[in-house]
Amino acid sequence: MHFSTCCGLLVVITTICYGAPSRSANTCGYETCNLGDPSKLNVHIVAHTHDDVGWLKTVDQYYYGARNDIQHAAVQYILDSVIMALDENPDRRFIYVEVGFFWRWWNQQTSDIQTKVQQFVNEGIYLVIILLRLSEVLNQGRLEFISGGWCMNDEASTHYNSIIDQHTLGAEIIRQAFGECGRPKIGWQIDPFGHSREQASLFAQMGFDGLFFGRADYEDIQTRNRTKTMEMVWKASANLGEQSWLFTGILPHGYGAPDSFCFDYRCSDNPIMDDNHRFDLNVQERVRSFIQAAHDEAAGYATNHIIMTFGGDFQYEDANQNFKNLDKLIKYVNAEQANGSNVNVFYSTPSCYLYALNKADRTWKSKTDDFFPYAHHPHGFWTGYFSSRAALKRFERHSNNILQVTRHLNAFANTSLRNSIFYLSEAMGVAQHHDAVSGTEKQEVAFDYAQRLSDGIGKAVDVINQAYNKLLPKSAQSPPLQAQFLCQLSNISQCLEIEGQDRFTLTLWNPVIHPVTQHVRVPVRFDYTVHDPNGQTLLTELIPISEPTQKIPGRTSLTQKQIIFKVALPALGFSTYYFEKKPDQQRTKEKSTVKITHNEACVLQNQYLRVDFDDQGNLHRIVNTNKNLGVSFSNQGFYWYQGFAGNNSRPEFQASGAYIFRPVSADPQPVSTTRTITCIKAEQVQTAVIIFNDWASQEISLYDEAEYTEVEWTVGPIPINDNIGKEIILRYDTDVNSGNKFYTDANGREVLERTRDYRPTWNYTVVETVAGNYYPVNSRIWIKNQERQFTILTDRSQGGSSIHDGSVELMLHRRLLYDDRLGVGEPLNETAFGEGLVVRGKQILFLQAPAASAAYHRIGAQRMYMHPLATYSLVQQSYDTYTANYRQTWTALADTLPLNVHLLTFEHLVENVYQIRVEHYFEQNEDDTYSHPVTFDLQSVFNSIGKIEQLVEVTLNADLPLIDLKRLTWVTGDKESSHPNVPEARLMANSTVRLIPMQIRTFNVVVSHP
Amino acid sequence: MHFSTCCGLLVVITTICYGAPSRSANTCGYETCNLGDPSKLNVHIVAHTHDDVGWLKTVDQYYYGARNDIQHAAVQYILDSVIMALDENPDRRFIYVEVGFFWRWWNQQTSDIQTKVQQFVNEGIYLVIILLRLSEVLNQGRLEFISGGWCMNDEASTHYNSIIDQHTLGAEIIRQAFGECGRPKIGWQIDPFGHSREQASLFAQMGFDGLFFGRADYEDIQTRNRTKTMEMVWKASANLGEQSWLFTGILPHGYGAPDSFCFDYRCSDNPIMDDNHRFDLNVQERVRSFIQAAHDEAAGYATNHIIMTFGGDFQYEDANQNFKNLDKLIKYVNAEQANGSNVNVFYSTPSCYLYALNKADRTWKSKTDDFFPYAHHPHGFWTGYFSSRAALKRFERHSNNILQVTRHLNAFANTSLRNSIFYLSEAMGVAQHHDAVSGTEKQEVAFDYAQRLSDGIGKAVDVINQAYNKLLPKSAQSPPLQAQFLCQLSNISQCLEIEGQDRFTLTLWNPVIHPVTQHVRVPVRFDYTVHDPNGQTLLTELIPISEPTQKIPGRTSLTQKQIIFKVALPALGFSTYYFEKKPDQQRTKEKSTVKITHNEACVLQNQYLRVDFDDQGNLHRIVNTNKNLGVSFSNQGFYWYQGFAGNNSRPEFQASGAYIFRPVSADPQPVSTTRTITCIKAEQVQTAVIIFNDWASQEISLYDEAEYTEVEWTVGPIPINDNIGKEIILRYDTDVNSGNKFYTDANGREVLERTRDYRPTWNYTVVETVAGNYYPVNSRIWIKNQERQFTILTDRSQGGSSIHDGSVELMLHRRLLYDDRLGVGEPLNETAFGEGLVVRGKQILFLQAPAASAAYHRIGAQRMYMHPLATYSLVQQSYDTYTANYRQTWTALADTLPLNVHLLTFEHLVENVYQIRVEHYFEQNEDDTYSHPVTFDLQSVFNSIGKIEQLVEVTLNADLPLIDLKRLTWVTGDKESSHPNVPEARLMANSTVRLIPMQIRTFNVVVSHP
Repeated sequence: MHFSTCCGLLVVITTICYGAPSRSANTCGYETCNLGDPSKLNVHIVAHTHDDVGWLKTVDQYYYGARNDIQHAAVQYILDSVIMALDENPDRRFIYVEVGFFWRWWNQQTSDIQTKVQQFVNEGIYLVIILLRLSEVLNQGRLEFISGGWCMNDEASTHYNSIIDQHTLGAEIIRQAFGECGRPKIGWQIDPFGHSREQASLFAQMGFDGLFFGRADYEDIQTRNRTKTMEMVWKASANLGEQSWLFTGILPHGYGAPDSFCFDYRCSDNPIMDDNHRFDLNVQERVRSFIQAAHDEAAGYATNHIIMTFGGDFQYEDANQNFKNLDKLIKYVNAEQANGSNVNVFYSTPSCYLYALNKADRTWKSKTDDFFPYAHHPHGFWTGYFSSRAALKRFERHSNNILQVTRHLNAFANTSLRNSIFYLSEAMGVAQHHDAVSGTEKQEVAFDYAQRLSDGIGKAVDVINQAYNKLLPKSAQSPPLQAQFLCQLSNISQCLEIEGQDRFTLTLWNPVIHPVTQHVRVPVRFDYTVHDPNGQTLLTELIPISEPTQKIPGRTSLTQKQIIFKVALPALGFSTYYFEKKPDQQRTKEKSTVKITHNEACVLQNQYLRVDFDDQGNLHRIVNTNKNLGVSFSNQGFYWYQGFAGNNSRPEFQASGAYIFRPVSADPQPVSTTRTITCIKAEQVQTAVIIFNDWASQEISLYDEAEYTEVEWTVGPIPINDNIGKEIILRYDTDVNSGNKFYTDANGREVLERTRDYRPTWNYTVVETVAGNYYPVNSRIWIKNQERQFTILTDRSQGGSSIHDGSVELMLHRRLLYDDRLGVGEPLNETAFGEGLVVRGKQILFLQAPAASAAYHRIGAQRMYMHPLATYSLVQQSYDTYTANYRQTWTALADTLPLNVHLLTFEHLVENVYQIRVEHYFEQNEDDTYSHPVTFDLQSVFNSIGKIEQLVEVTLNADLPLIDLKRLTWVTGDKESSHPNVPEARLMANSTVRLIPMQIRTFNVVVSHP
Repeated sequence: MHFSTCCGLLVVITTICYGAPSRSANTCGYETCNLGDPSKLNVHIVAHTHDDVGWLKTVDQYYYGARNDIQHAAVQYILDSVIMALDENPDRRFIYVEVGFFWRWWNQQTSDIQTKVQQFVNEGIYLVIILLRLSEVLNQGRLEFISGGWCMNDEASTHYNSIIDQHTLGAEIIRQAFGECGRPKIGWQIDPFGHSREQASLFAQMGFDGLFFGRADYEDIQTRNRTKTMEMVWKASANLGEQSWLFTGILPHGYGAPDSFCFDYRCSDNPIMDDNHRFDLNVQERVRSFIQAAHDEAAGYATNHIIMTFGGDFQYEDANQNFKNLDKLIKYVNAEQANGSNVNVFYSTPSCYLYALNKADRTWKSKTDDFFPYAHHPHGFWTGYFSSRAALKRFERHSNNILQVTRHLNAFANTSLRNSIFYLSEAMGVAQHHDAVSGTEKQEVAFDYAQRLSDGIGKAVDVINQAYNKLLPKSAQSPPLQAQFLCQLSNISQCLEIEGQDRFTLTLWNPVIHPVTQHVRVPVRFDYTVHDPNGQTLLTELIPISEPTQKIPGRTSLTQKQIIFKVALPALGFSTYYFEKKPDQQRTKEKSTVKITHNEACVLQNQYLRVDFDDQGNLHRIVNTNKNLGVSFSNQGFYWYQGFAGNNSRPEFQASGAYIFRPVSADPQPVSTTRTITCIKAEQVQTAVIIFNDWASQEISLYDEAEYTEVEWTVGPIPINDNIGKEIILRYDTDVNSGNKFYTDANGREVLERTRDYRPTWNYTVVETVAGNYYPVNSRIWIKNQERQFTILTDRSQGGSSIHDGSVELMLHRRLLYDDRLGVGEPLNETAFGEGLVVRGKQILFLQAPAASAAYHRIGAQRMYMHPLATYSLVQQSYDTYTANYRQTWTALADTLPLNVHLLTFEHLVENVYQIRVEHYFEQNEDDTYSHPVTFDLQSVFNSIGKIEQLVEVTLNADLPLIDLKRLTWVTGDKESSHPNVPEARLMANSTVRLIPMQIRTFNVVVSHP
């Protein structure tokens, strides 16, 4: 892996890199497409392969074709053979999607092959130059990159930060290898199991002209087929207007070939047999059958152009087989025109098909909601995967936190270690795959994803160390630092490296551009004096580690206590806290401030909130004392749905599995009839530890001066000795009169209103009353009425719903005994340490008036996923020596930046060149203060680096200067026309940036050092 | 199919076609081979595919890859992708075997591809010319044809006539497409289930330098591996001396790749994963494992060269996968030499491996017996297939009879319809495949083979018609002839086309070069006057059609009588018999000469023989009254073995199936305890019809003046309603003191002595006392003692044995209920008309002194497989008009030719050019008169055509003038050295041909017309 040789092109951000404006559209763009014959039914054949970046096998196994006993699939040969097949016939076209695979293949090719592939991608240019304006010639590149992410990401459980990152990574590779003609223009989400509006919006912001996908609810498809509305204009943001519009098409038969026309080696459909001298001649029958299939498909579509995908999972491993037969099919079907057939078939691409539709110059129906949840039959709701593999989902989210912090440190310390960070970038790119963070992979593959993230984090920690080695020492004479390390098990109050040490430091990098105050807990064996960056001794308390935490399998620490204290971190910077063991005499002298009660009624209270429990451990009420609002709970706690145990032979026998959520009953059972409660009250925090049974507990905490309630849940090992699969939820039955409405975010950004038992665009048949109402919750869910909004932030993606008025629930963990027969071939039965996996996580609860809520959940969610990153270091020096030699706090920002601006990504590309994304992370009209456009100077972020000399705004995936972007125009049924191109204002004269609500802007920046 | 464009090259039989002498060996021959490193263990990697010409799918389905649901296999893509892969890397080598597949692929290629393939085959030439004597460079062609028959023929149930034909057909195609460098030099029988000595002898006569195969008895292999005698010199003929010697090697592991190294898309072995930056890196382990495999294999072989096949059934469908990994394997294994490894691995071919062995200059053990029967475990004797699909086996043999007659007629009538005959030639080529005539294909495929033969016969009949249209009319004024047709069901006494006709003709072509006398039976509704070619009215008799014949399912004829008469046919010519319905009054007037008795003792007797039956239908005795010899039968009749019903999960559970014969008990059961006998005595023939039960009967006949006893057996439908599979034999328990010896022919030619429960070359463990003693009987089996030899000729290939002293048995028909799990996946359970298939056949019995027997069985067998071909025609003309207009007899021969010479093949290639094979068909020392060399003038055969102007003797498969043939020399352990090259005497000055016993000579002949 030699990333350094790859990123040369990208960073030359002037016209040299991105090309002269307008070349893109004129030469390698749509103009060279075959648009068929206006008097005929034009069939666009799209040859493609769908290469999962891990699923039943690991990504490496898929690439090489190892473990073909599990699944026959080998991407290296797909790319080998497609290139050979394209060489055979210039009419052939192929699209490729997953840059994560392409890139490793590309690096293994000879320069001859690389040149050939470049030619295939670019030949539009060369031919057009040669042929001048013979543009009717089929000059579109033989090989077209489509979507062009590192993978084809999941849309339910992915966070927008990582979707953008993985697309940027893919786009960078394509641009570097192929220049502008390689630029993907179309989203291609053929396999993901439901489609988020945010994904479409992000695609639009990447400058894409359209999106195609293969899966939508079976009733939705029936309706659209009947009404010829399989294709539409998706208004993909409630905030961004036309720049978020995206033409969207649902493919006719998933992403496979029409019935009986799969010529791939994985299929058993007959080839075209055209030797008159042999038996089994089938040309006539095949032609007849294909023409019928074309007419059948055309019946559901609006124009005289239709798309036919010819591909599937890991198809084209011997592309010759596919193309040889497609060549014949095209030849013989078109020959039938001489006999009066009106079917005109040709190799095409999604872009060219889209362009043909665009040229059709008609109006299209629009859509404003999303494509969740997806069901393929009345009992087949793909809403289980919203929660499957809860631990992996959290690890992925946490890994992104580390990745962004590492990029910050690499940039501000100028360590130029992008190559090292690449391991984690790539692992995150892989993890976004729709069978990765989705939780729908085999167990061994889930381990592999985790291993990759872990390895990537390992390299990231090296970068962090090198960065801190530059940022911390006050002078060149400062002695070398001991290594910084992560305490990855601190969520179970374990950090063996520091436990029992006499002294160590804790350094926290705050990745948000605002100061942050928070409480820190550190598991310890004894008490410490903690020195803050200003030399002050902090107020600390020793509080017990809860009994459920101590009993978590795999926790080897014997420590029963943790130290807790509050820190105030600078914006976009770090603070170091020095821990020094207290002398024995001092320790014995101090009296604990902690009070503990067992199974008594208990009230947690701070400056803002009061939380009431009865002596049975039931949460009764949360009161926002400050705002004089309260919510009462008729029930709160853990419940389980019994997963349906079926053999999947018929829809009625559909089992609950990795993909599918199908509870036997709509009424979940409580996990226990009784609970115990222990109240632990210290000055910094008050906690009720509520134990439901030996596998489910929650710790509900109020921190000093916090305006939220924290719920830390621990679930597992889910028992299955009764042979019943269980899906565990945490439910809050409140007195909020929320009716049938609830609200869930999409990919951590915009929030959509959900209505129970209802679909906005078709007449919905209610069959599965629970599973059919589950939606992905990436970061938040709420219910509300006029006065009160009860909001829950989650620390990872989960499925959630409101099954009854006033109720809100999140599915935390699932353990199932049946495969749902959608491919994975395993029941979702995660184990660790010889029993079911234990999962732990956090929820943050807000109780506020609706109008006040956005400020809390927007800021809260942003800080939750971009949490300060704690690194520890064992130090030898005394506090005085340490503080004499090392900087203990630092911020990149001289100014304060507006609270509604978020630094989404910040990355040092090469010498003097940076890529930065800033966003307005409030929606319109949700907050009186923050839901307005905001302006600030980007130079603020760069103050510690240098002066911004050049600033090029680029598409969201950073592969084209916005000034060069020309998106296609579409007209909707209400006669609105999209004018999706760049507003002039975005061509910047200086570094002042204006953001409208929910806007993300991406810049490549050249900086001169002071 | 445009055969005419294909056969241009072959026919230019001068040096222009066959090349200057000596070019072959010097340029595209062995000299360009990589011979490795003498100080290392040299591993010759042989990349190959094994493409069954029909098996589980039909040959067309295999070619195209249709019905991949049955078996994934597609030859078109194999050849496509191999050519592409060879293009990628000039080091790569590939061998191809089955010209039947190659030819259809070749015809579908563009001339660009054809040129490329020619280059791959021939590049030895070009490079050597360019590089002059840099012969150490790897110039051997990348693509090498090996064996080069139309298919890889079966060795047990094939007749030598058709083996030679199918190899000639393949060789012609190769020569025409590639010239001399394409010429195969090695036999490659990797899959056939046992190996006949005759096959090896034929290969030697084709000029081959060696033979490799994959299957041999498991004990044989153990022994050879232990004694490093896996490779040997096979002295393949007891008559032909050194010209029949063939170096022979048994491949190390069948024909597959070493364990865990199958890189084919059909396997699941891991690829070589060599990206250091990825997980699953396996180079080191793979290299270590390969080196171990090489050493393990070398332990069983004699030199420091070993061969490793990398291929299998229908492998290399995406050759890139195979070669890409082999490239890496070679690279990394050889790199290990730097660390002291002595393994040197490289792409090679069987020829180059053979040449390396030849250069080793050592002595080799020799072998004189054959490799039958083949067992893969103690209960797995592949002796069932000797008899499987008895009807197909006969149809194939009969089709050859028609093919040869058609060629004769096409040549002598100068109709130049070789293209039309090609259909049958090809169908016969296909039928020789080791899963065709062997009977080990699926039922649907068996139907397809039969269909192809039938279609080919249809085209052949067209040729026959056109030929007779030229041969029969006496002048241009003769009115057009009615069509000639075959009566294919005459073996069940049915010929609906003529039944009830007032007049018709019967024309018989005698394909042997000696006059033949025989009896003809024609099913009729009433009596006819039959006019012979000389205008004489023949003595005819009306005899009844036997009851078992009349009851055969599918026989729709209501005719109960047949007319019988004796004909005398000219050598290599025809006679026509004119049938004219006798007037009613004449018929009623004539008194039948036929006498019939039921269930009485009965004696059949003619001038030479007496056959005694008791009143229970038991055959008691056959007496050669002329020679005063008798044989008594303690038992004679049908018995059945119960086929073992197993699940094949272990050797002990091996089932009897299409391949395997495994009787439950060594004692077969008689099919009935009683029989009925009907004696029918006419002047022409005396017949005992013995009915054993409703599914087994025999008709034993003595014809007037015949020196043999004919047994016509009818077996079926074999009952399986008892759920027991049955294998039916006809057994003769005689009083001949034959001891444990019996004699069977190989492929219809030389006869091998068999010894019960014994193997000549290893210490044989007797487990299966019946199956392990079965041998293929292609044409004859005998037992003998000092005075008497009891010989049985068969009309098709069957398994046969002598399980007890004095006993001889042939397996006639098999019906089984279990698959033997060797791939075919079906029990051998043939049905027709809704019940088990009925099969009928003939045996000819001779009782003679041993010294006199050869003359009978040699001549008898030759006339049995080259029977006069009967065609019928409905004529309108009266006999007088007919005889005035049409020639009624004709012979190609002016002279009589020696009785021990057989015209094996005779074919008109193109204008003036003929190909002829003549053979001495007696072995040495078997007959006082005929077992001597014989000389005759080839001109005799051509007298009716013209004068022989040029005569080039060529190899047996006609692809090289013998004068250019240089076979490699091998030295055997007894220090004999082969000098296998052409004796000077064979460079002919005139058309006088000398043949030594069992010699076949092949000539291309240019004739000038008179």
